[in-house]
Amino acid sequence: MSTAASTAASGPFAERGSAREVEEGTAFAPKFDDAGNLAAVATDADTGEVLMFAWMNADALARTIETGQAHFYSRSRGRLWKKGEESGNLLEVVEMRTDCDQDAVWLRVRVGGAGAACHTGRKSCFYRSVPLRTGASVSLAVQTVGGAPLFDPAAVYPSGTKPDGGS
Amino acid sequence: MSTAASTAASGPFAERGSAREVEEGTAFAPKFDDAGNLAAVATDADTGEVLMFAWMNADALARTIETGQAHFYSRSRGRLWKKGEESGNLLEVVEMRTDCDQDAVWLRVRVGGAGAACHTGRKSCFYRSVPLRTGASVSLAVQTVGGAPLFDPAAVYPSGTKPDGGS
Repeated sequence: MSTAASTAASGPFAERGSAREVEEGTAFAPKFDDAGNLAAVATDADTGEVLMFAWMNADALARTIETGQAHFYSRSRGRLWKKGEESGNLLEVVEMRTDCDQDAVWLRVRVGGAGAACHTGRKSCFYRSVPLRTGASVSLAVQTVGGAPLFDPAAVYPSGTKPDGGS
Repeated sequence: MSTAASTAASGPFAERGSAREVEEGTAFAPKFDDAGNLAAVATDADTGEVLMFAWMNADALARTIETGQAHFYSRSRGRLWKKGEESGNLLEVVEMRTDCDQDAVWLRVRVGGAGAACHTGRKSCFYRSVPLRTGASVSLAVQTVGGAPLFDPAAVYPSGTKPDGGS
């Protein structure tokens, strides 16, 4: 990987061809948005539970491919973010897939450390259920379903350095 | 749901409070980006396979909640998009979850019709695997892993109306 890839929109990846080439071809030609990011979804490789949603720029994607450990781009902090660098909850990527138009990737992962992918200490960022088949309104109440925290964020992240909420 | 919700960034949903309220509270207060959308990930409710990634504006989110059928916002077509409206492959939402900072939702779904969530005819949009623990380069080749198409897109979508590649 060239270090110049950290700011280039397409990084070290192939240029995008026609829609048919992107959808049916074998070239990995990821599409980054205007800000230089693509969407990344991480699921538990064993259970299929969605653990987190975040963004990758070309550098984060290249480092993820090279190391097999998930790297993201923190939009709020404006920098590369090796997941778990502070908490120890690294994400070991078992498999990476790209979608039809190659503007999103799916990571099947195993979570290291305390086993928590969420900065709140929980296994998954998606620990609250939204009611369905009801009118959407300002008073819609979510229900916690995702279990208790696996670590104490206050003890792990120095004040003011808490990472993004998965985005 | 007010019809005015289709353009409002927050739609009929609660205003967002402090980070702690958003992360630990019970109010559903989704965060839409500058374009008025939030990220939506759909997985097979039974197997955990990620089926597609797309966007929802406030109107799409409200209709999904009200009907229990997945609606998205098509950024390329600039309109509300009831998933499966043309193909018949509706997504019945078994459960919806929101993440810690409430800027993404996870839909656990069952796919109707031919059982294909992807506009290419495949069950999942994520039908290609990206090699790992190798140098990222322009010649990185993906491998098809997601199975054969379940319907023929050319027979389902009139020319020029093919929906977004899940985004």
